[in-house]
Amino acid sequence: MALKVHGLAKAMSVSCVMLCLAEKELDFEFVNVNCSKGEQKLPPFLSKNPFGKIPVFEDGPLTLFESRAITRYIAHKYKDIGTDLFRHGNIEEAAIVGVWTEVESQHFNPPSFAIIYEMFVGPIFGHTVDQSVVNLNIEKLDKVLDVYEARLSKSKYLACDSFSLADLHHLPNIYYLMKITPCADLINSRPHVKAWWEDISARPSFVKVAQGLTLGE
Amino acid sequence: MALKVHGLAKAMSVSCVMLCLAEKELDFEFVNVNCSKGEQKLPPFLSKNPFGKIPVFEDGPLTLFESRAITRYIAHKYKDIGTDLFRHGNIEEAAIVGVWTEVESQHFNPPSFAIIYEMFVGPIFGHTVDQSVVNLNIEKLDKVLDVYEARLSKSKYLACDSFSLADLHHLPNIYYLMKITPCADLINSRPHVKAWWEDISARPSFVKVAQGLTLGE
Repeated sequence: MALKVHGLAKAMSVSCVMLCLAEKELDFEFVNVNCSKGEQKLPPFLSKNPFGKIPVFEDGPLTLFESRAITRYIAHKYKDIGTDLFRHGNIEEAAIVGVWTEVESQHFNPPSFAIIYEMFVGPIFGHTVDQSVVNLNIEKLDKVLDVYEARLSKSKYLACDSFSLADLHHLPNIYYLMKITPCADLINSRPHVKAWWEDISARPSFVKVAQGLTLGE
Repeated sequence: MALKVHGLAKAMSVSCVMLCLAEKELDFEFVNVNCSKGEQKLPPFLSKNPFGKIPVFEDGPLTLFESRAITRYIAHKYKDIGTDLFRHGNIEEAAIVGVWTEVESQHFNPPSFAIIYEMFVGPIFGHTVDQSVVNLNIEKLDKVLDVYEARLSKSKYLACDSFSLADLHHLPNIYYLMKITPCADLINSRPHVKAWWEDISARPSFVKVAQGLTLGE
Protein backbone atom coordinates (compact mmCIF):
# COMPACT_ATOMS: atom_id res chain seq x y z
CA MET A 1 0.00 0.00 0.00
CA ALA A 2 1.40 3.41 -0.96
CA LEU A 3 0.16 5.54 1.95
CA LYS A 4 1.40 5.03 5.52
CA VAL A 5 0.68 6.88 8.77
CA HIS A 6 3.13 6.32 11.63
CA GLY A 7 1.85 7.25 15.09
CA LEU A 8 -0.65 6.58 17.84
CA ALA A 9 -4.37 6.62 17.00
CA LYS A 10 -5.26 8.45 20.22
CA ALA A 11 -2.86 11.36 19.55
CA MET A 12 -4.63 14.52 18.31
CA SER A 13 -2.12 15.32 15.56
CA VAL A 14 -2.17 11.74 14.24
CA SER A 15 -5.96 11.59 14.20
CA CYS A 16 -6.07 14.84 12.18
CA VAL A 17 -4.08 13.14 9.42
CA MET A 18 -6.35 10.06 9.53
CA LEU A 19 -9.39 12.31 9.42
CA CYS A 20 -8.07 14.07 6.35
CA LEU A 21 -7.47 10.69 4.65
CA ALA A 22 -11.01 9.61 5.59
CA GLU A 23 -12.47 12.79 4.03
CA LYS A 24 -10.55 11.87 0.88
CA GLU A 25 -11.70 8.23 1.13
CA LEU A 26 -8.06 7.11 0.87
CA ASP A 27 -6.89 3.79 2.34
CA PHE A 28 -3.62 3.70 4.23
CA GLU A 29 -1.45 1.44 6.35
CA PHE A 30 -1.23 2.42 10.04
CA VAL A 31 2.16 1.84 11.69
CA ASN A 32 1.92 1.98 15.47
CA VAL A 33 4.71 3.90 17.27
CA ASN A 34 5.19 2.91 20.89
CA CYS A 35 5.61 6.40 22.36
CA SER A 36 5.46 5.28 26.00
CA LYS A 37 8.64 3.26 25.26
CA GLY A 38 10.17 6.28 23.47
CA GLU A 39 10.27 4.59 20.05
CA GLN A 40 9.83 8.00 18.39
CA LYS A 41 13.19 9.12 19.82
CA LEU A 42 15.16 6.17 18.37
CA PRO A 43 17.18 6.25 15.12
CA PRO A 44 14.72 4.36 12.85
CA PHE A 45 12.00 6.92 13.58
CA LEU A 46 14.39 9.90 13.76
CA SER A 47 15.48 9.14 10.19
CA LYS A 48 11.87 9.95 9.18
CA ASN A 49 11.38 12.93 11.54
CA PRO A 50 14.50 14.40 13.18
CA PHE A 51 12.32 16.10 15.81
CA GLY A 52 11.14 12.70 17.11
CA LYS A 53 7.43 13.55 16.97
CA ILE A 54 4.41 11.72 15.59
CA PRO A 55 2.84 11.63 13.02
CA VAL A 56 4.99 10.75 10.05
CA PHE A 57 3.29 10.24 6.70
CA GLU A 58 4.60 8.35 3.68
CA ASP A 59 3.22 8.60 0.16
CA GLY A 60 5.40 6.20 -1.81
CA PRO A 61 8.98 7.59 -1.65
CA LEU A 62 7.88 10.91 -0.09
CA THR A 63 8.20 11.18 3.72
CA LEU A 64 6.54 14.09 5.53
CA PHE A 65 6.16 15.20 9.16
CA GLU A 66 4.26 18.00 10.97
CA SER A 67 0.55 17.15 10.88
CA ARG A 68 -0.62 20.45 9.36
CA ALA A 69 1.91 20.16 6.53
CA ILE A 70 0.70 16.58 5.94
CA THR A 71 -2.99 17.49 5.80
CA ARG A 72 -2.26 20.44 3.47
CA TYR A 73 -0.31 18.09 1.18
CA ILE A 74 -3.14 15.53 1.14
CA ALA A 75 -5.71 18.28 0.48
CA HIS A 76 -3.67 19.57 -2.49
CA LYS A 77 -2.38 16.28 -3.94
CA TYR A 78 -5.78 14.60 -3.82
CA LYS A 79 -7.84 17.71 -4.52
CA ASP A 80 -9.98 15.95 -7.11
CA ILE A 81 -11.31 13.21 -4.82
CA GLY A 82 -13.50 13.32 -1.70
CA THR A 83 -14.21 16.59 0.14
CA ASP A 84 -12.62 19.77 -1.26
CA LEU A 85 -10.79 20.80 1.92
CA PHE A 86 -9.07 23.86 0.51
CA ARG A 87 -11.55 25.54 -1.89
CA HIS A 88 -9.13 24.97 -4.74
CA GLY A 89 -11.20 26.68 -7.39
CA ASN A 90 -11.27 30.06 -5.62
CA ILE A 91 -7.99 31.70 -4.58
CA GLU A 92 -9.72 34.19 -2.22
CA GLU A 93 -11.69 31.47 -0.39
CA ALA A 94 -8.55 29.32 -0.26
CA ALA A 95 -6.77 32.28 1.37
CA ILE A 96 -9.48 32.48 4.06
CA VAL A 97 -9.12 28.72 4.68
CA GLY A 98 -5.42 29.49 5.15
CA VAL A 99 -6.19 32.26 7.67
CA TRP A 100 -8.46 30.08 9.84
CA THR A 101 -6.08 27.14 9.59
CA GLU A 102 -3.43 29.46 11.07
CA VAL A 103 -5.90 30.64 13.73
CA GLU A 104 -6.25 27.01 14.86
CA SER A 105 -2.48 26.60 14.90
CA GLN A 106 -1.61 29.87 16.67
CA HIS A 107 -4.65 30.66 18.87
CA PHE A 108 -6.80 27.55 19.44
CA ASN A 109 -4.28 24.73 19.64
CA PRO A 110 -1.83 26.19 22.21
CA PRO A 111 -4.37 26.54 25.07
CA SER A 112 -6.53 23.50 24.17
CA PHE A 113 -3.49 21.25 23.73
CA ALA A 114 -2.00 22.57 26.99
CA ILE A 115 -5.17 21.67 28.94
CA ILE A 116 -5.35 18.13 27.51
CA TYR A 117 -1.60 17.60 27.87
CA GLU A 118 -1.48 18.85 31.44
CA MET A 119 -4.44 16.73 32.56
CA PHE A 120 -3.99 13.50 30.56
CA VAL A 121 -0.66 13.22 28.71
CA GLY A 122 1.81 14.55 31.30
CA PRO A 123 0.52 12.13 33.99
CA ILE A 124 1.30 9.15 31.68
CA PHE A 125 4.94 10.23 31.98
CA GLY A 126 4.70 10.74 35.76
CA HIS A 127 4.10 14.50 35.84
CA THR A 128 1.80 15.93 38.51
CA VAL A 129 -1.10 18.04 37.20
CA ASP A 130 -0.50 21.76 37.77
CA GLN A 131 -4.01 23.21 38.14
CA SER A 132 -2.74 26.78 37.60
CA VAL A 133 -1.58 25.78 34.09
CA VAL A 134 -5.02 24.30 33.37
CA ASN A 135 -6.80 27.42 34.67
CA LEU A 136 -4.58 29.86 32.75
CA ASN A 137 -5.25 28.00 29.51
CA ILE A 138 -8.99 27.77 30.14
CA GLU A 139 -8.96 31.59 30.41
CA LYS A 140 -7.05 31.90 27.14
CA LEU A 141 -9.35 29.44 25.35
CA ASP A 142 -12.42 31.29 26.63
CA LYS A 143 -11.26 34.48 24.86
CA VAL A 144 -10.46 32.64 21.64
CA LEU A 145 -13.92 31.04 21.62
CA ASP A 146 -15.57 34.46 21.95
CA VAL A 147 -14.06 35.29 18.55
CA TYR A 148 -15.25 31.92 17.19
CA GLU A 149 -18.81 32.57 18.41
CA ALA A 150 -18.90 35.89 16.56
CA ARG A 151 -17.37 34.34 13.43
CA LEU A 152 -19.76 31.36 13.41
CA SER A 153 -22.78 33.65 13.80
CA LYS A 154 -21.94 34.99 10.33
CA SER A 155 -20.42 31.95 8.61
CA LYS A 156 -21.62 28.31 8.78
CA TYR A 157 -18.03 27.04 9.02
CA LEU A 158 -14.90 28.87 10.14
CA ALA A 159 -13.52 29.78 6.73
CA CYS A 160 -16.54 29.72 4.42
CA ASP A 161 -19.91 28.07 3.88
CA SER A 162 -18.49 24.57 3.53
CA PHE A 163 -16.39 22.28 5.72
CA SER A 164 -12.64 22.86 5.20
CA LEU A 165 -9.27 21.99 6.64
CA ALA A 166 -9.73 24.89 9.09
CA ASP A 167 -12.66 23.07 10.74
CA LEU A 168 -11.10 19.61 10.45
CA HIS A 169 -8.00 20.55 12.48
CA HIS A 170 -10.19 21.39 15.50
CA LEU A 171 -12.00 18.08 15.84
CA PRO A 172 -9.69 15.90 17.99
CA ASN A 173 -8.92 18.65 20.53
CA ILE A 174 -12.59 19.65 20.96
CA TYR A 175 -13.58 15.97 21.26
CA TYR A 176 -11.21 15.53 24.20
CA LEU A 177 -12.19 18.88 25.73
CA MET A 178 -15.85 17.75 25.64
CA LYS A 179 -15.23 14.17 26.78
CA ILE A 180 -12.50 14.15 29.43
CA THR A 181 -11.92 17.71 30.66
CA PRO A 182 -14.14 20.12 32.64
CA CYS A 183 -14.24 22.41 29.56
CA ALA A 184 -17.40 21.15 27.79
CA ASP A 185 -19.24 24.26 28.92
CA LEU A 186 -16.84 26.47 26.95
CA ILE A 187 -18.43 24.93 23.84
CA ASN A 188 -22.00 24.30 25.10
CA SER A 189 -22.47 27.84 26.42
CA ARG A 190 -21.89 29.37 22.98
CA PRO A 191 -24.82 28.53 20.66
CA HIS A 192 -23.03 28.98 17.33
CA VAL A 193 -19.88 27.18 18.48
CA LYS A 194 -22.05 24.35 19.86
CA ALA A 195 -24.03 24.01 16.61
CA TRP A 196 -20.78 24.02 14.60
CA TRP A 197 -19.26 21.35 16.86
CA GLU A 198 -22.39 19.16 16.60
CA ASP A 199 -22.32 19.49 12.83
CA ILE A 200 -18.63 18.75 12.24
CA SER A 201 -18.38 15.98 14.84
CA ALA A 202 -21.28 14.11 13.14
CA ARG A 203 -19.33 13.71 9.89
CA PRO A 204 -18.81 10.01 9.10
CA SER A 205 -15.04 10.58 8.82
CA PHE A 206 -14.89 11.82 12.41
CA VAL A 207 -17.30 9.22 13.83
CA LYS A 208 -14.83 6.63 12.49
CA VAL A 209 -11.62 8.33 13.69
CA ALA A 210 -13.10 9.19 17.12
CA GLN A 211 -13.19 5.46 17.94
CA GLY A 212 -9.41 5.63 18.35
CA LEU A 213 -9.43 8.73 20.57
CA THR A 214 -9.11 6.81 23.83
CA LEU A 215 -6.98 9.19 25.92
CA GLY A 216 -8.27 9.27 29.49
CA GLU A 217 -10.02 5.86 29.24
CA MET B 1 -2.75 51.20 -4.49
CA ALA B 2 -4.26 47.72 -4.23
CA LEU B 3 -1.96 46.13 -1.63
CA LYS B 4 -1.83 47.36 1.99
CA VAL B 5 0.09 46.12 5.03
CA HIS B 6 -1.18 47.29 8.43
CA GLY B 7 1.30 46.96 11.29
CA LEU B 8 4.60 48.07 12.77
CA ALA B 9 7.76 47.73 10.66
CA LYS B 10 9.82 46.51 13.63
CA ALA B 11 7.46 43.60 14.42
CA MET B 12 8.76 40.21 13.24
CA SER B 13 5.46 39.01 11.79
CA VAL B 14 4.89 42.26 9.89
CA SER B 15 8.40 42.28 8.46
CA CYS B 16 7.88 38.70 7.19
CA VAL B 17 4.98 39.93 5.07
CA MET B 18 7.02 42.89 3.77
CA LEU B 19 9.91 40.54 2.99
CA CYS B 20 7.60 38.29 1.00
CA LEU B 21 6.31 41.30 -0.96
CA ALA B 22 9.91 42.43 -1.60
CA GLU B 23 10.82 38.95 -2.96
CA LYS B 24 7.84 39.33 -5.31
CA GLU B 25 8.87 42.91 -6.19
CA LEU B 26 5.36 44.10 -5.31
CA ASP B 27 4.68 47.67 -4.17
CA PHE B 28 2.32 48.23 -1.25
CA GLU B 29 1.01 50.93 1.03
CA PHE B 30 2.16 50.66 4.66
CA VAL B 31 -0.41 51.68 7.29
CA ASN B 32 1.19 52.24 10.68
CA VAL B 33 -0.69 50.79 13.69
CA ASN B 34 0.14 52.46 17.00
CA CYS B 35 0.40 49.33 19.14
CA SER B 36 1.84 51.09 22.19
CA LYS B 37 -1.45 53.05 22.30
CA GLY B 38 -3.42 49.80 21.77
CA GLU B 39 -4.82 50.82 18.37
CA GLN B 40 -4.90 47.14 17.34
CA LYS B 41 -7.48 46.44 20.08
CA LEU B 42 -9.93 49.13 18.92
CA PRO B 43 -13.01 48.51 16.69
CA PRO B 44 -11.62 49.85 13.37
CA PHE B 45 -8.71 47.38 13.53
CA LEU B 46 -10.76 44.57 15.14
CA SER B 47 -13.10 44.68 12.12
CA LYS B 48 -10.10 43.58 10.05
CA ASN B 49 -8.65 41.09 12.57
CA PRO B 50 -10.91 40.06 15.49
CA PHE B 51 -7.85 38.80 17.41
CA GLY B 52 -6.41 42.33 17.53
CA LYS B 53 -2.98 41.35 16.22
CA ILE B 54 -0.75 42.78 13.52
CA PRO B 55 -0.23 42.34 10.59
CA VAL B 56 -3.34 42.71 8.49
CA PHE B 57 -3.00 42.53 4.72
CA GLU B 58 -5.37 43.85 2.08
CA ASP B 59 -5.36 42.90 -1.58
CA GLY B 60 -8.19 44.96 -3.04
CA PRO B 61 -11.39 43.76 -1.33
CA LEU B 62 -9.70 40.75 0.30
CA THR B 63 -8.61 41.22 3.95
CA LEU B 64 -6.29 38.63 5.56
CA PHE B 65 -4.58 38.23 8.93
CA GLU B 66 -2.06 35.75 10.41
CA SER B 67 1.35 36.44 8.84
CA ARG B 68 1.98 32.86 7.66
CA ALA B 69 -1.41 32.72 5.91
CA ILE B 70 -0.63 36.06 4.28
CA THR B 71 2.81 35.02 2.97
CA ARG B 72 1.38 31.72 1.65
CA TYR B 73 -1.35 33.65 -0.16
CA ILE B 74 1.18 36.06 -1.70
CA ALA B 75 3.43 33.15 -2.72
CA HIS B 76 0.50 31.41 -4.45
CA LYS B 77 -1.35 34.38 -5.91
CA TYR B 78 1.80 35.94 -7.34
CA LYS B 79 3.59 32.70 -8.16
CA ASP B 80 4.58 33.85 -11.64
CA ILE B 81 6.53 36.92 -10.55
CA GLY B 82 9.71 37.32 -8.47
CA THR B 83 11.15 34.44 -6.43
CA ASP B 84 9.29 31.10 -6.54
CA LEU B 85 8.80 30.76 -2.77
CA PHE B 86 6.76 27.55 -2.85
CA ARG B 87 8.28 25.37 -5.64
CA HIS B 88 4.98 25.47 -7.48
CA GLY B 89 6.00 23.23 -10.32
CA ASN B 90 6.82 20.24 -8.09
CA ILE B 91 4.20 18.94 -5.63
CA GLU B 92 6.75 16.89 -3.63
CA GLU B 93 9.15 19.84 -3.20
CA ALA B 94 6.20 22.09 -2.34
CA ALA B 95 5.24 19.54 0.35
CA ILE B 96 8.74 19.75 1.85
CA VAL B 97 8.51 23.58 1.85
CA GLY B 98 5.25 23.04 3.76
CA VAL B 99 6.98 20.77 6.30
CA TRP B 100 9.80 23.22 7.06
CA THR B 101 7.39 26.16 7.14
CA GLU B 102 5.55 24.25 9.88
CA VAL B 103 8.86 23.50 11.63
CA GLU B 104 9.47 27.26 11.85
CA SER B 105 5.96 27.79 13.18
CA GLN B 106 5.90 24.96 15.73
CA HIS B 107 9.56 24.50 16.78
CA PHE B 108 11.66 27.56 15.93
CA ASN B 109 9.29 30.48 16.51
CA PRO B 110 8.00 29.61 20.01
CA PRO B 111 11.40 29.72 21.77
CA SER B 112 12.98 32.45 19.60
CA PHE B 113 9.91 34.68 19.88
CA ALA B 114 9.76 34.05 23.64
CA ILE B 115 13.38 35.18 24.10
CA ILE B 116 12.90 38.37 22.06
CA TYR B 117 9.51 39.10 23.66
CA GLU B 118 10.75 38.55 27.20
CA MET B 119 13.83 40.74 26.73
CA PHE B 120 12.58 43.54 24.47
CA VAL B 121 8.79 43.58 23.94
CA GLY B 122 7.50 42.85 27.46
CA PRO B 123 9.57 45.68 28.99
CA ILE B 124 7.92 48.21 26.59
CA PHE B 125 4.66 47.32 28.40
CA GLY B 126 6.27 47.53 31.84
CA HIS B 127 7.00 43.82 32.40
CA THR B 128 10.16 42.85 34.28
CA VAL B 129 12.47 40.43 32.43
CA ASP B 130 12.23 36.89 33.87
CA GLN B 131 15.69 35.43 33.21
CA SER B 132 14.44 31.87 33.84
CA VAL B 133 12.05 32.23 30.87
CA VAL B 134 14.94 33.44 28.69
CA ASN B 135 17.18 30.56 29.80
CA LEU B 136 14.52 27.88 29.32
CA ASN B 137 13.88 29.07 25.77
CA ILE B 138 17.59 29.27 24.94
CA GLU B 139 17.81 25.57 25.92
CA LYS B 140 14.84 24.72 23.67
CA LEU B 141 16.24 26.72 20.75
CA ASP B 142 19.63 25.05 21.15
CA LYS B 143 18.04 21.62 20.55
CA VAL B 144 16.04 22.85 17.54
CA LEU B 145 19.21 24.30 15.98
CA ASP B 146 20.98 20.95 16.32
CA VAL B 147 18.38 19.55 13.92
CA TYR B 148 18.87 22.55 11.62
CA GLU B 149 22.65 22.02 11.57
CA ALA B 150 22.18 18.40 10.47
CA ARG B 151 19.58 19.39 7.86
CA LEU B 152 21.68 22.23 6.43
CA SER B 153 24.72 19.95 6.12
CA LYS B 154 22.70 18.01 3.50
CA SER B 155 20.56 20.75 1.92
CA LYS B 156 21.62 24.30 0.97
CA TYR B 157 18.31 25.72 2.24
CA LEU B 158 15.88 24.23 4.74
CA ALA B 159 13.37 22.74 2.31
CA CYS B 160 15.35 22.28 -0.90
CA ASP B 161 18.24 23.69 -2.93
CA SER B 162 16.67 27.10 -3.38
CA PHE B 163 15.41 29.84 -1.05
CA SER B 164 11.77 29.30 -0.06
CA LEU B 165 9.11 30.55 2.31
CA ALA B 166 10.54 28.14 4.93
CA ASP B 167 13.80 30.13 5.04
CA LEU B 168 12.11 33.53 4.69
CA HIS B 169 10.01 33.10 7.84
CA HIS B 170 13.18 32.75 9.96
CA LEU B 171 14.84 36.02 8.98
CA PRO B 172 13.41 38.64 11.38
CA ASN B 173 13.72 36.45 14.49
CA ILE B 174 17.31 35.40 13.73
CA TYR B 175 18.19 39.03 12.95
CA TYR B 176 17.06 40.11 16.43
CA LEU B 177 18.66 37.06 18.10
CA MET B 178 21.99 38.04 16.47
CA LYS B 179 21.71 41.78 17.06
CA ILE B 180 20.12 42.39 20.46
CA THR B 181 20.14 39.13 22.49
CA PRO B 182 23.00 37.08 23.93
CA CYS B 183 22.08 34.23 21.50
CA ALA B 184 24.33 35.03 18.50
CA ASP B 185 26.57 32.14 19.43
CA LEU B 186 23.70 29.67 18.93
CA ILE B 187 24.00 30.56 15.23
CA ASN B 188 27.75 31.27 14.96
CA SER B 189 28.80 28.03 16.67
CA ARG B 190 27.06 25.89 14.01
CA PRO B 191 28.93 26.19 10.68
CA HIS B 192 26.06 25.18 8.39
CA VAL B 193 23.48 27.29 10.23
CA LYS B 194 25.90 30.24 10.17
CA ALA B 195 26.56 29.88 6.42
CA TRP B 196 22.79 29.63 5.76
CA TRP B 197 22.10 32.73 7.89
CA GLU B 198 24.84 34.71 6.11
CA ASP B 199 23.42 33.69 2.75
CA ILE B 200 19.74 34.43 3.42
CA SER B 201 20.36 37.65 5.36
CA ALA B 202 22.38 39.06 2.42
CA ARG B 203 19.37 38.92 0.08
CA PRO B 204 18.47 42.44 -1.15
CA SER B 205 14.88 41.93 0.09
CA PHE B 206 16.08 41.40 3.64
CA VAL B 207 18.74 44.13 3.57
CA LYS B 208 15.88 46.52 2.75
CA VAL B 209 13.38 45.17 5.32
CA ALA B 210 16.03 44.94 8.08
CA GLN B 211 16.29 48.75 8.10
CA GLY B 212 12.92 48.80 9.88
CA LEU B 213 13.86 46.15 12.49
CA THR B 214 14.68 48.67 15.21
CA LEU B 215 13.53 46.79 18.33
CA GLY B 216 16.03 47.34 21.15
CA GLU B 217 17.44 50.58 19.65
